[in-house]
Amino acid sequence: MSRIDGRTPDQLRPVTLERGWSRHAEGSVLVHFGDTRVLCTASVTEGVPRWRKGSGEGWVTAEYSMLPRSTNTRGDREAVKGRIGGRTHEISRLIGRSLRAVIDYRALGENTIVLDCDVLQADGGTRTAAITGAYVALADAVAWMHRTRMLRPSRKVLTGSVAAVSVGIIDGTPMLDLAYEEDVRAETDMNVVCTGDGRFVEVQGTAEGAPFDRSLLDSLLDMAVKGCAELTVLQQVALAEELPSTDRG
Amino acid sequence: MSRIDGRTPDQLRPVTLERGWSRHAEGSVLVHFGDTRVLCTASVTEGVPRWRKGSGEGWVTAEYSMLPRSTNTRGDREAVKGRIGGRTHEISRLIGRSLRAVIDYRALGENTIVLDCDVLQADGGTRTAAITGAYVALADAVAWMHRTRMLRPSRKVLTGSVAAVSVGIIDGTPMLDLAYEEDVRAETDMNVVCTGDGRFVEVQGTAEGAPFDRSLLDSLLDMAVKGCAELTVLQQVALAEELPSTDRG
Amino acid sequence: MSRIDGRTPDQLRPVTLERGWSRHAEGSVLVHFGDTRVLCTASVTEGVPRWRKGSGEGWVTAEYSMLPRSTNTRGDREAVKGRIGGRTHEISRLIGRSLRAVIDYRALGENTIVLDCDVLQADGGTRTAAITGAYVALADAVAWMHRTRMLRPSRKVLTGSVAAVSVGIIDGTPMLDLAYEEDVRAETDMNVVCTGDGRFVEVQGTAEGAPFDRSLLDSLLDMAVKGCAELTVLQQVALAEELPSTDRG
Amino acid sequence: MSRIDGRTPDQLRPVTLERGWSRHAEGSVLVHFGDTRVLCTASVTEGVPRWRKGSGEGWVTAEYSMLPRSTNTRGDREAVKGRIGGRTHEISRLIGRSLRAVIDYRALGENTIVLDCDVLQADGGTRTAAITGAYVALADAVAWMHRTRMLRPSRKVLTGSVAAVSVGIIDGTPMLDLAYEEDVRAETDMNVVCTGDGRFVEVQGTAEGAPFDRSLLDSLLDMAVKGCAELTVLQQVALAEELPSTDRG
Amino acid sequence: MSRIDGRTPDQLRPVTLERGWSRHAEGSVLVHFGDTRVLCTASVTEGVPRWRKGSGEGWVTAEYSMLPRSTNTRGDREAVKGRIGGRTHEISRLIGRSLRAVIDYRALGENTIVLDCDVLQADGGTRTAAITGAYVALADAVAWMHRTRMLRPSRKVLTGSVAAVSVGIIDGTPMLDLAYEEDVRAETDMNVVCTGDGRFVEVQGTAEGAPFDRSLLDSLLDMAVKGCAELTVLQQVALAEELPSTDRG
Amino acid sequence: MSRIDGRTPDQLRPVTLERGWSRHAEGSVLVHFGDTRVLCTASVTEGVPRWRKGSGEGWVTAEYSMLPRSTNTRGDREAVKGRIGGRTHEISRLIGRSLRAVIDYRALGENTIVLDCDVLQADGGTRTAAITGAYVALADAVAWMHRTRMLRPSRKVLTGSVAAVSVGIIDGTPMLDLAYEEDVRAETDMNVVCTGDGRFVEVQGTAEGAPFDRSLLDSLLDMAVKGCAELTVLQQVALAEELPSTDRG
Repeated sequence: MSRIDGRTPDQLRPVTLERGWSRHAEGSVLVHFGDTRVLCTASVTEGVPRWRKGSGEGWVTAEYSMLPRSTNTRGDREAVKGRIGGRTHEISRLIGRSLRAVIDYRALGENTIVLDCDVLQADGGTRTAAITGAYVALADAVAWMHRTRMLRPSRKVLTGSVAAVSVGIIDGTPMLDLAYEEDVRAETDMNVVCTGDGRFVEVQGTAEGAPFDRSLLDSLLDMAVKGCAELTVLQQVALAEELPSTDRG
Repeated sequence: MSRIDGRTPDQLRPVTLERGWSRHAEGSVLVHFGDTRVLCTASVTEGVPRWRKGSGEGWVTAEYSMLPRSTNTRGDREAVKGRIGGRTHEISRLIGRSLRAVIDYRALGENTIVLDCDVLQADGGTRTAAITGAYVALADAVAWMHRTRMLRPSRKVLTGSVAAVSVGIIDGTPMLDLAYEEDVRAETDMNVVCTGDGRFVEVQGTAEGAPFDRSLLDSLLDMAVKGCAELTVLQQVALAEELPSTDRG
Repeated sequence: MSRIDGRTPDQLRPVTLERGWSRHAEGSVLVHFGDTRVLCTASVTEGVPRWRKGSGEGWVTAEYSMLPRSTNTRGDREAVKGRIGGRTHEISRLIGRSLRAVIDYRALGENTIVLDCDVLQADGGTRTAAITGAYVALADAVAWMHRTRMLRPSRKVLTGSVAAVSVGIIDGTPMLDLAYEEDVRAETDMNVVCTGDGRFVEVQGTAEGAPFDRSLLDSLLDMAVKGCAELTVLQQVALAEELPSTDRG
Repeated sequence: MSRIDGRTPDQLRPVTLERGWSRHAEGSVLVHFGDTRVLCTASVTEGVPRWRKGSGEGWVTAEYSMLPRSTNTRGDREAVKGRIGGRTHEISRLIGRSLRAVIDYRALGENTIVLDCDVLQADGGTRTAAITGAYVALADAVAWMHRTRMLRPSRKVLTGSVAAVSVGIIDGTPMLDLAYEEDVRAETDMNVVCTGDGRFVEVQGTAEGAPFDRSLLDSLLDMAVKGCAELTVLQQVALAEELPSTDRG
Repeated sequence: MSRIDGRTPDQLRPVTLERGWSRHAEGSVLVHFGDTRVLCTASVTEGVPRWRKGSGEGWVTAEYSMLPRSTNTRGDREAVKGRIGGRTHEISRLIGRSLRAVIDYRALGENTIVLDCDVLQADGGTRTAAITGAYVALADAVAWMHRTRMLRPSRKVLTGSVAAVSVGIIDGTPMLDLAYEEDVRAETDMNVVCTGDGRFVEVQGTAEGAPFDRSLLDSLLDMAVKGCAELTVLQQVALAEELPSTDRG
Repeated sequence: MSRIDGRTPDQLRPVTLERGWSRHAEGSVLVHFGDTRVLCTASVTEGVPRWRKGSGEGWVTAEYSMLPRSTNTRGDREAVKGRIGGRTHEISRLIGRSLRAVIDYRALGENTIVLDCDVLQADGGTRTAAITGAYVALADAVAWMHRTRMLRPSRKVLTGSVAAVSVGIIDGTPMLDLAYEEDVRAETDMNVVCTGDGRFVEVQGTAEGAPFDRSLLDSLLDMAVKGCAELTVLQQVALAEELPSTDRG
């Protein structure tokens, strides 16, 4: 079974994680999953939302958005429409939840990190690219907090890493990391977020066409776990490189 | 392991499906999952949204909302806040997707059915109760369309049934149909939507605490499939009864 | 002159006041005026809005809303439209004003009671049913405040009771408590809110068709006063029963 | 009993109705009720709202607003807040209803008249001044429609006139046309809209302090009817004068 | 070259500045530039916006708005649309910036002055009339602050005066203070804000038709400076008169 | 006088114009003015806004936005706030107006081109970079329309080119193309938009500190015209290169 771009069913698209893309942010990554490009920035601020004040614990949250012409046909800006759509809300919440799964709030102290994931170009898998890139931006922001003595060295904020990938069933065959044209044709679409040690943070599977049975679900999960493991290695490689210098020092 | 309300881990709360609750709607069900009460109404209108006109196909959508004092502490109305929150959006979309999984759009013709799921009292599992009840309201609305000759008898709009249930891990033990107090304590929370023949429409699992491994995921899926099968029987029993007469005749 | 449901012109529809309907609220009533059903909940919170802080006085306010399919044809949700309509605003303000007429703010202390009146099914007279039911929910909430020692026994928060009813002129004849079909045909429509001792809290009369003269106005007022007196008795009977136990204890 | 401005209890403030104030509008009046100044413009457009198309009938509606510093302390603009408040909605609806009471929709044909009532300076009675002034602007707009042959001479759009006044009880005494300082002190506040022949279009009475009994209500109604009759004469006098020329010709 | 109203190219329309128009505001001016009428009120409040607290410095800001029928065809209210349009935002910002150019924030102390500029009738040049009138209202508000001892006599809040005028090129000829019909025909439109001593605060030139060259730009600037100088004299004359007494005393 | 980055007062920052950056858009440019990076995409659609239908003329408009962490401290998203701020509105309008100055609407036919200018990183001059980049994206979109036969070769849509630059006075010295740190310190700030043949499309000068006199204004204009001429050459060079292939072909 050959895919539109010549990949094998269980092959990721070319993935790059360009750290230090933004000069202002405490952490920033331009992530490519093939032609999908998401700019992920991590912004650190002292203090926490009101409902968390005095708890001694920090907070991590995320906002996802697409540029109007990141897609094939131009979409209206949500700022112009005056309201955020359901899909945007849903993905922002997913990204935030996924990253919070590896945060030790107490180690973070009463500080907040906001992950902004802005899709510059979309070709399927924007939410999984966002999570995978945002983790790297988050790791850089935490490193910045240590480097600037905002956190003492003993504070281990990150309890692990997270990566995410999409899987789907096309013409009955499970496939990894769907490009947009594949996504449209998929009967079932699943997004899986795993920790670096292979456990699940989030499993979201939807039958777009016919409902799916347990054996297909199992094969999708197997493929997703394998994909996340590869992404974890790419994250580790990216983080092992020296960070380009930015305003944040 | 005993639960707060004395249930066994794999036991549903008492479930009732009161059909014909509303005098105006083409289909309506007041569903109880224990103390969770959701009023589900199905509204039939001729015509479809603009983007679907001329397709010969129908549309089914859903809106979910909670009354301000359906919860333990009063929540602000989204109408007063002037915007719909992310959680509301997400659940509305889930309900709509779940029901569309058993709709034959072509058989429905260019008609729209809107499912309104309003939570009158919340005690955990509002979204799964909403899906389970909304299916019954939908079935009644389709029957109404046949009875009133809006659809010819040969048009089989429903290709199956759907039901939904939550499962979660509490103190390491998988449990079915979590009440609110259990939900708060769950390390992992999963909502599963199944068709009447036991296939998956939607699987949404989230690690609220520690990430979960494959074997726990498998046991949660097993338990959810069993719970949905029981709910399917309850739906069938409810639909086999005679419908109270309403304005809709 | 016989009415569509066989009532005499000055006869109320069957009225029921089901207390303790909601498990979470400090006071709650499901009120029926015939087929009109409104769920009224009273929520108590410590503290008052900012503009009243430090005054030593409490506050009572109300919010009214209709479920989308409470009516014969489905209405759009105000939360989805992103703004509250004029009619909703007007009725919410009317309910709040009516209940505040029997509140001793100083006895209430710096506490707030919010009355939520959600119309589950509409058949005319939703605002008058809401006021009549909300008073009972309010009385239960005040009793709860006494029972839980939030208020000392000497604090008499309620200075009286309120009930409300609609009256209208149909084909030249004054009629009490109009059902929806009657309301649509009424030349003049009036809503009257009275205290338990028969004085007026609010009189709102509108000529829907031809302007009305003083003698018709007088006969409408007479009929409304009589209707409110009957509702006052029904409120007293309901409040004399033992309250079902709820979460609120 | 002497009033703050020396009036007798049943005396109106000085009222002026300056026609043709705006050069652009089809009808316009700057109305003074003492220090209350409201600019009322009537805008004629061909066509009607969508829900009325093809009916052969016209539509009349109104919008009320206060300039931010029309009041003693500056209020935030509703445009800045992004939503219209309940009071504004309520008054806009009242003005529209009041004027529609004297409109023959069929004679108007499928045309729309919008009455904008903008309070330039507020000193009590803004809604009653608005209705009284808006009627005159409406009459001028209808005359303009006849003069420009938009309506044939035989089309009698106006079936009568409307005027409005406030009455209230201060220290137990009924008083006419309350100024702001009086309004604040009133135990009961009533707004009454009458036709030129003395019938009621709208009666809205509210107990701000203690509930009121029937005899007080009767005396308020008597006083209001008398006040509206005087305003009707002032409207007739104003309309008998020659209209200053405007852009509208 | 004769203009539609008979003016010479470098002649202002008749300008009047009616002080003390509003009884409530600390400063108020009804300004006419020909048929353009703008009501400018200055509202003084103690305290400053949050971001300026503790700075010891004051703040001056402005809001501009047009009544719906101030123009030839009725425009929708921004409050009804629920959002402020770009043009309104832009002009509000321009007015605020222009007035702040002559404010000594430190002398003002932590007080805020809001200038509301509401266009009652529009015939071109509404923003320049607003700035010219708002300066006079501002001067009256500052005088009020001195008179009421809110500011000590030594505090010189105003470092100068500002006035504004529009210039444009019509059929190749530069013209001063364009009326609406001229504005529509102008190839280039420029708004210039000058201080009383003839320096520039703001220069905003836009090629509506063909781009313009440097010599035309120079002649427009010359004409605008001359127009602002004349307006400055009119402001001085107006401020030299005795202020009508208002509520503000 | 040396600048923070070593430039001479009349020297531009390094400028790059990367065409074909986006795979989906009909024209796209990533423009750098030093560290300021703006992604400009041009989206072509058939048809025009409603108010222009049937005119035979096209339309060009622009939307400007900043990513939340394009700046030194994170700004809230306008989509989250639910409304577009005044500055965003103002710049969007400026960009649209500037580009429309070189459009022959009739040659464009009833087609619309939307320019989206999203600031990925801000360091002063974002609006001038946006205009300069958007012109190149626009030129590519028009070329695409010709290449795809959407426009016949004889249709010359562009009547010229536009470029924009900021100038300001710092410590009394005029300087070209201010970086953010310079912008903050500037006493006067001016944005100038010129056509390729050196005429003015827009001149917007603001005294941030002291008002400025005519001779300073003249020197700023001289410097801006020279800067725009250099940018025009850079645009020409960029457009002379071969366009990378995109989805748009």
